[in-house]
Amino acid sequence: MVGRSRNPAHEEARRFRMTVRAGEHTGHTAGRAPGGVQGNVVVLPANDAGDFLRFCQRNPKPCPLLAVSEPGDPALPPLGENIDIRTDVPQYRIFEHGAAAGDVTDIRDLWRDDLVAFVLGCSFSFEEALIQAGVRLRHLEEGREVAMYRTSIPTRPAGRFHGPMVASMRPLTPRDAIRAIQITSRFPQVHGAPVHFGDPGAIGIDDLERPDYGEHTPFLADEVPVFWACGVTPQAVVQEAQPAFCITHKPGHMLVTDLLNAELTAM
Amino acid sequence: MVGRSRNPAHEEARRFRMTVRAGEHTGHTAGRAPGGVQGNVVVLPANDAGDFLRFCQRNPKPCPLLAVSEPGDPALPPLGENIDIRTDVPQYRIFEHGAAAGDVTDIRDLWRDDLVAFVLGCSFSFEEALIQAGVRLRHLEEGREVAMYRTSIPTRPAGRFHGPMVASMRPLTPRDAIRAIQITSRFPQVHGAPVHFGDPGAIGIDDLERPDYGEHTPFLADEVPVFWACGVTPQAVVQEAQPAFCITHKPGHMLVTDLLNAELTAM
Repeated sequence: MVGRSRNPAHEEARRFRMTVRAGEHTGHTAGRAPGGVQGNVVVLPANDAGDFLRFCQRNPKPCPLLAVSEPGDPALPPLGENIDIRTDVPQYRIFEHGAAAGDVTDIRDLWRDDLVAFVLGCSFSFEEALIQAGVRLRHLEEGREVAMYRTSIPTRPAGRFHGPMVASMRPLTPRDAIRAIQITSRFPQVHGAPVHFGDPGAIGIDDLERPDYGEHTPFLADEVPVFWACGVTPQAVVQEAQPAFCITHKPGHMLVTDLLNAELTAM
Repeated sequence: MVGRSRNPAHEEARRFRMTVRAGEHTGHTAGRAPGGVQGNVVVLPANDAGDFLRFCQRNPKPCPLLAVSEPGDPALPPLGENIDIRTDVPQYRIFEHGAAAGDVTDIRDLWRDDLVAFVLGCSFSFEEALIQAGVRLRHLEEGREVAMYRTSIPTRPAGRFHGPMVASMRPLTPRDAIRAIQITSRFPQVHGAPVHFGDPGAIGIDDLERPDYGEHTPFLADEVPVFWACGVTPQAVVQEAQPAFCITHKPGHMLVTDLLNAELTAM
């Protein structure tokens, strides 16, 4: 884990969280508080939380754990001052027995003394580094959500948690792909290096034009698909494991933390 | 540049050079003095050496310069004690006006007071690191020389030196290719990260089965071609530039130095 430091970018993250907490921002978080780490959120009852923690430990590429709360405590001090996980995410998705049961903007009503919050790294962090290095990310240029697919790559199960890895895909030229492998290798806490490139069938994807989550971005002639482990994997795993109760962020609606992307680089 | 240190592997390199100097070893150097850096050799008259030095500086991926001798001095102290570039390479190739004019095992007869020796990093160094990381290099498993191709990737000219980059190609699974990009990025002095993967036509290669140098290794179903800048580039450039006189090593017959591959890692 990385520590907190004082930085103007942190102030922007805090201010942004206050607008979310006040209900003034309920939309996507892409591009908000630039330079700051955004996190995937999973909230589970304590009786499932131990299994899920082991699941994350065993699957660090899709589930890179940035912080875990104390049971019943909505604070996450390693990720920012005064974070309240019940109010600081723009939209939450409720799961009951593995099925999505609605999206809400506040989970104070649903909070319980046995709930544990997990925050996992998100590819927004490495996308910023890729753009800074001149790598073209055309889904962003074209205003699309990144395409995500359930793959045939298995996760390592822990207790009730099991299921396929979800991968995000970005069309890149081979030259940019090589550069992107170098850059994302420096970010092990936000999915790290790709898990695959090229033939989608090799990881169980039948049709690139039909992603399971997000949107398809058409390819240019010289581009190949490059696949990264994706933080949506926990949602796919919750759908398989069907815990009685679970709350996640709504995809794209992340927790904005005080950490800086630049603090996450391994070297 | 890296410095010399005392190590048993260095002793093995020195002993090997003595067998070469004595004419007892005139063959390939692959696998000799394991752990040690082997180098590509280019010897040019001083009136061409300045241009070639600039050429290397402008093209560090194919021509990563490990050491340059003083004019007329056959020693290369940064690369090893008592190296004599006139005798310590198993076989040399003579070029006259860009055309190969024979291979010899000793260049003492040809040595002149104005000759400058250049030693360039070689992919043997990163191949060792790849094997240690569990990456399959099937050309080695099958006892073949690596396949090399003249590409359409231009080098940056300097004086008379110009021409296409030569690339070596290794068939790898995407998983191994990603790992290989990570590992070879740590070795900028021995060609560094790949320059391309996938479609050979994108870098001007018409037929992978017909390499310009070395041997073809057939692909397995899940493998893709991965291309690295190659130390044979100077030989292709000498053939284009047609300097009156030039000596190189014979491909595969390298200078074995006292440097260790492990000393070359960037991080």
